Amino acid sequence: MNESKNSVSKSPIEKMLDESAMTSFDHVIINANIATFSAQHGFGIEISDDENKHADSIPYGQLEKAAIGIKDGKIAWVGKQNQITAHLPKYQASQITDVDGKWITPGLIDCHTHIVYGGNRSNEFEARLQGASYQDIAAQGGGIVATVTATRAASIESLFAQSEKRLLALMKEGVTSIEIKSGYGLDLDTERKMLTVARQLGEKYDIHVSTTYLAAHALPTEYKDHADDYIEQVCEWLPILHAEGLVDAVDGFCENIAFSTEQIRRVFEVARSLNLPVKLHSEQLSDIGGSALVAEYKGLSSDHLEHLSEEDIKKMAASNTVAVILPGAFYTLRDIKLPPIEALRKHQVPMAISTDCNPGTSPLTSLLLMMNMGCTLFYLTPEEVLAGSTVYAAQALGLPNKGKVEVGCDADLALWDIARPADLAYQMGLNPIQGIMIQGKWRETM
Amino acid sequence: MNESKNSVSKSPIEKMLDESAMTSFDHVIINANIATFSAQHGFGIEISDDENKHADSIPYGQLEKAAIGIKDGKIAWVGKQNQITAHLPKYQASQITDVDGKWITPGLIDCHTHIVYGGNRSNEFEARLQGASYQDIAAQGGGIVATVTATRAASIESLFAQSEKRLLALMKEGVTSIEIKSGYGLDLDTERKMLTVARQLGEKYDIHVSTTYLAAHALPTEYKDHADDYIEQVCEWLPILHAEGLVDAVDGFCENIAFSTEQIRRVFEVARSLNLPVKLHSEQLSDIGGSALVAEYKGLSSDHLEHLSEEDIKKMAASNTVAVILPGAFYTLRDIKLPPIEALRKHQVPMAISTDCNPGTSPLTSLLLMMNMGCTLFYLTPEEVLAGSTVYAAQALGLPNKGKVEVGCDADLALWDIARPADLAYQMGLNPIQGIMIQGKWRETM
Ligand SMILES: [Zn+2]
Ligand SMILES: [Zn+2]
Repeated sequence: MNESKNSVSKSPIEKMLDESAMTSFDHVIINANIATFSAQHGFGIEISDDENKHADSIPYGQLEKAAIGIKDGKIAWVGKQNQITAHLPKYQASQITDVDGKWITPGLIDCHTHIVYGGNRSNEFEARLQGASYQDIAAQGGGIVATVTATRAASIESLFAQSEKRLLALMKEGVTSIEIKSGYGLDLDTERKMLTVARQLGEKYDIHVSTTYLAAHALPTEYKDHADDYIEQVCEWLPILHAEGLVDAVDGFCENIAFSTEQIRRVFEVARSLNLPVKLHSEQLSDIGGSALVAEYKGLSSDHLEHLSEEDIKKMAASNTVAVILPGAFYTLRDIKLPPIEALRKHQVPMAISTDCNPGTSPLTSLLLMMNMGCTLFYLTPEEVLAGSTVYAAQALGLPNKGKVEVGCDADLALWDIARPADLAYQMGLNPIQGIMIQGKWRETM
Repeated sequence: MNESKNSVSKSPIEKMLDESAMTSFDHVIINANIATFSAQHGFGIEISDDENKHADSIPYGQLEKAAIGIKDGKIAWVGKQNQITAHLPKYQASQITDVDGKWITPGLIDCHTHIVYGGNRSNEFEARLQGASYQDIAAQGGGIVATVTATRAASIESLFAQSEKRLLALMKEGVTSIEIKSGYGLDLDTERKMLTVARQLGEKYDIHVSTTYLAAHALPTEYKDHADDYIEQVCEWLPILHAEGLVDAVDGFCENIAFSTEQIRRVFEVARSLNLPVKLHSEQLSDIGGSALVAEYKGLSSDHLEHLSEEDIKKMAASNTVAVILPGAFYTLRDIKLPPIEALRKHQVPMAISTDCNPGTSPLTSLLLMMNMGCTLFYLTPEEVLAGSTVYAAQALGLPNKGKVEVGCDADLALWDIARPADLAYQMGLNPIQGIMIQGKWRETM
């Protein structure tokens, strides 16, 4: 027996690639350039090994001329191409995808959306550009009230059909996981209907959907001047919908024109009692302490953040709360107050970006466009916006096994016809997607 | 014979729809809502007829519940649905498209593009966001020099393949006619190669391509400090390329950092001698009189225009020169100086919008996104940006038979799954295209 001799002569990588391990992959992707966003491949960390002390981190955690082995819907092996090619004859052609030097990123993750809603508000968009004021429009039942009315009126089938188009537009650009909020029902039945549609979208397209209960989005007209009474209802509905399996997280709109930190705290207390993670629309229009509240509850993310103070950034850093940056709303509202990107960098708060897809302030379904706007409007780097659409977006949803190309993570991938990762943020409108893989399965038709 | 009785009893519309006329259509589109952009259907004009004196113009020249008859690639009839349905039994199913209440616009026209180029500049985009200055990048052969180098080096096949992706992205959003400029060759052979690729793109996709000679785009490094000598070459190359059938119009970049009005005038003089229409990149960064020069030569369009004066707007109005507004470059350059939209309206200068697709200052291939940016950044109305992508874009290219749904015009159409025309400007990333028709033929695959 020369077993012990063999095992001595094999390097660890050779052992990992020995015949029995290799033939256990369901699928192998070869000839890939990979933006792994994995610390194991140098993303975002200081490398210190024998040859290369204190080296810089590797941009994008990139791995060129590489291969991926997939087993049971998970990434089972990631490494250099030349370490896997000798084993390929053991595989059938159908198990191998040769991507011919194209780039693979983690499947994109849109971590803040309101894609489920009825109607649209292009009529208001047009009226405002023709000179109507917000007051004129509100007086005609416009604004969020219009969306609430249309969403309440829509059948579940109609709501699904309207929302499905938006999901498909996102998937066509590489999205493999999405967060979907309620918040245009503002009554129990319609909040349930929205969250049910969100779940149905995930089932039909076999895509991960994180649902978020956002009944504390706006005050419904029937509760005018009775915001505390409405919050009481919001608190009562949450356990009901949670018991129905419809709620993965809890959100609110904390702003002078919406709900106070005291009101949001009441909702967060119910969330805590149910062990549900929280997040918040905070500091978009003013600084009333929303992010500090999220940090206090060790929330997943605080979102928007144009008016966030450095004090509260420190609290977010301490609670490991993700800063979700939403350039589409900034652009659509013609905002001029930039979020405090430098301070977020300084305190190492992870930044995600997202579409904030909604019919009022961010009528868009392109995470690639948000990457460009993150760079152009907020001076984020391409690496930051890509990390913000993958690994940090996963963190914002509490999904540590997504958003990275790393052994043990879900095999959710996007394949791109690009020269380099920065192309994704640089080009607008030229969708270079070649395909997406969700939990180990390629999706040919999108 | 009751012929004369019959003809007396028929209204003009009935006569137009009599059996012999009807059966002569090659194709009929029914159940359409049409944004005609035709003055004959009320677009942009004051209507004054017997019933309705001094009525307002009809937004978008829209015609609801309407039909279109097509013959020999041209629009042969446009009118109300109920005036055509009785005649439909005479047609075979294959000749009728029932669009089920969807919207039809003229095929979109992108009237200012540089889609033919080699390489891309995402590396510079990334380097600048990482802190490199324009000087750093120029010192490394970056900027327009990088694109000139890559375009000169590319084989004609490679240049075609790279540019084709951009054309297809535009066509997928409803573009049926496009202008394509040279200007990254800056030598005779490469300018020829670019214009040849532009022609080949038009042939392969059977789409109208207007070619524009833009050798006066930048000073090639080999002519450093000898701009007048270079302009002499530009003037010499133009008749050569025109004789080869490669040039439909002549353009230049008139700016302190590019060429003076005196230098551009020399190029325009050659254009005039060849009966070629002119246009110009004017007043983007400063006001040095480019638009006045274009007006003097009765040019088709003056483009960019952020620094345009009211005096020169009056000259453009007098010469019937279109103002081509390019929000993508404004956005990408983070410009803050808005073009003089109000003054252009006041003097009734037609405004077109376009992608300005180019690798440096407008790396984008979405005319729909430009509609949104026209509204969001420049406060144009949805009707203005749609007119600017159809009827006025056609005017900017000297194509009076395109950009309108009107009898006698080319049957170039786009079919959209939208609730109202404003949706096209309101939504970003949600491409609602259902198909395009070019000269009477539906394109199923794009
Ligand atoms: Zn939101
Ligand atoms: Zn240009």
